[in-house]
Amino acid sequence: MKKAVFFDIDDTLLDTSNFAKSARKSAIRMMVDNGLPIPFDEAYSLLKEIISQKGSNYDKHFDVLTKTVLGEKNSMLIALGMITYHNIKFALLRPFPKTTDTLIYLKSKGYRLGVISNGLTIKQWEKLVRLNLHNFFDEVITSEEVGFEKPNKYIYDESLKRMDCEAENSIMIGNRLDTDCMGAINAGMSAILIDPQVTPEEIQRIEEDNLDIEIIKNISEIEDLL
Amino acid sequence: MKKAVFFDIDDTLLDTSNFAKSARKSAIRMMVDNGLPIPFDEAYSLLKEIISQKGSNYDKHFDVLTKTVLGEKNSMLIALGMITYHNIKFALLRPFPKTTDTLIYLKSKGYRLGVISNGLTIKQWEKLVRLNLHNFFDEVITSEEVGFEKPNKYIYDESLKRMDCEAENSIMIGNRLDTDCMGAINAGMSAILIDPQVTPEEIQRIEEDNLDIEIIKNISEIEDLL
Repeated sequence: MKKAVFFDIDDTLLDTSNFAKSARKSAIRMMVDNGLPIPFDEAYSLLKEIISQKGSNYDKHFDVLTKTVLGEKNSMLIALGMITYHNIKFALLRPFPKTTDTLIYLKSKGYRLGVISNGLTIKQWEKLVRLNLHNFFDEVITSEEVGFEKPNKYIYDESLKRMDCEAENSIMIGNRLDTDCMGAINAGMSAILIDPQVTPEEIQRIEEDNLDIEIIKNISEIEDLL
Repeated sequence: MKKAVFFDIDDTLLDTSNFAKSARKSAIRMMVDNGLPIPFDEAYSLLKEIISQKGSNYDKHFDVLTKTVLGEKNSMLIALGMITYHNIKFALLRPFPKTTDTLIYLKSKGYRLGVISNGLTIKQWEKLVRLNLHNFFDEVITSEEVGFEKPNKYIYDESLKRMDCEAENSIMIGNRLDTDCMGAINAGMSAILIDPQVTPEEIQRIEEDNLDIEIIKNISEIEDLL
């Protein structure tokens, strides 16, 4: 009998990738319309390149963008990009459909709930608090806090310790096989992979290695498993 | 054994009066700073008077305010007031502390939850959706929809019908004795009054008439009663 259920945040509880993409596109559109002297497609590709080089938690993507295009930073365009990015991101921020219902269901079944997330502590809490999801979770553990990222075993061990729960009674739920699920398996937990685009290779790997991982396409299917 | 729990929204689940007051003050400050030619205190008193005359759901308070002060409407000032009002209101909108925990608790105990609110349907849903509280409720009933306001018995009868629940198995929770609680009692339900400022007269009335109404100061005390 499972007692604790841990969730990933980004692309598991909410559609982070899609709202970040919309927010970046709107920001670039605004910067180009207000004087960044290259076409939209080129500017957007450049931004994606900068993000993949610097990482998504770097906070000066637009500085680098204007410096690359203009030879020097342009504060007006940077501010315009940042404001647009944040306005759009927060305007679109919602949990995936049925997420809150599923959390209510799990609480009503008596599970203790936690979050294990790779990311900056305050950024991850901000998402939970804005969506009013934070009350569901007994513990929120971030890689920044712990000093190790999923799939490192240490972040799961620390999470289990804080939750005062054994690995064999705990389950990790996330959208990434390699990080969320494999890390949990290596820490002795089981896992649920939520992935509408799971590949045949991934399914084969789970079956061949007889891994304790269930695959679902939608968070609401958790109700059939727990 | 109670099966259904109905909640009021404004000043029960969230601190509507306080955030509306802050938002109105900020809007008036902005209008005065940008050319409304009367002192802040006078403009704020005038706005309160207009609201009490026209009702809080009237949507042209600032139109009347500028017309009263200037002799004609001033679109710039009206727009400035409205934007400020909405920005501040949505910036401050949060449930009361422990509200979400209490709703989680009630769901985990198997209660069906509903809302019975005096107000405009979309305005009330907007608050629930912005706070991501809507998933907790099986039914949301507004006076606009039903055509009768609390404490009219009809809105409770209609709510019980939609929830498919008997009055004797249902309880109403709200911050107003005369509307939320007395209406529920007259419809055959019991009630919980959440009111840190309950008056001796109100307590006396409940005791003398032997009304099935519990008084609490904080929403989290519901856990001791249900």
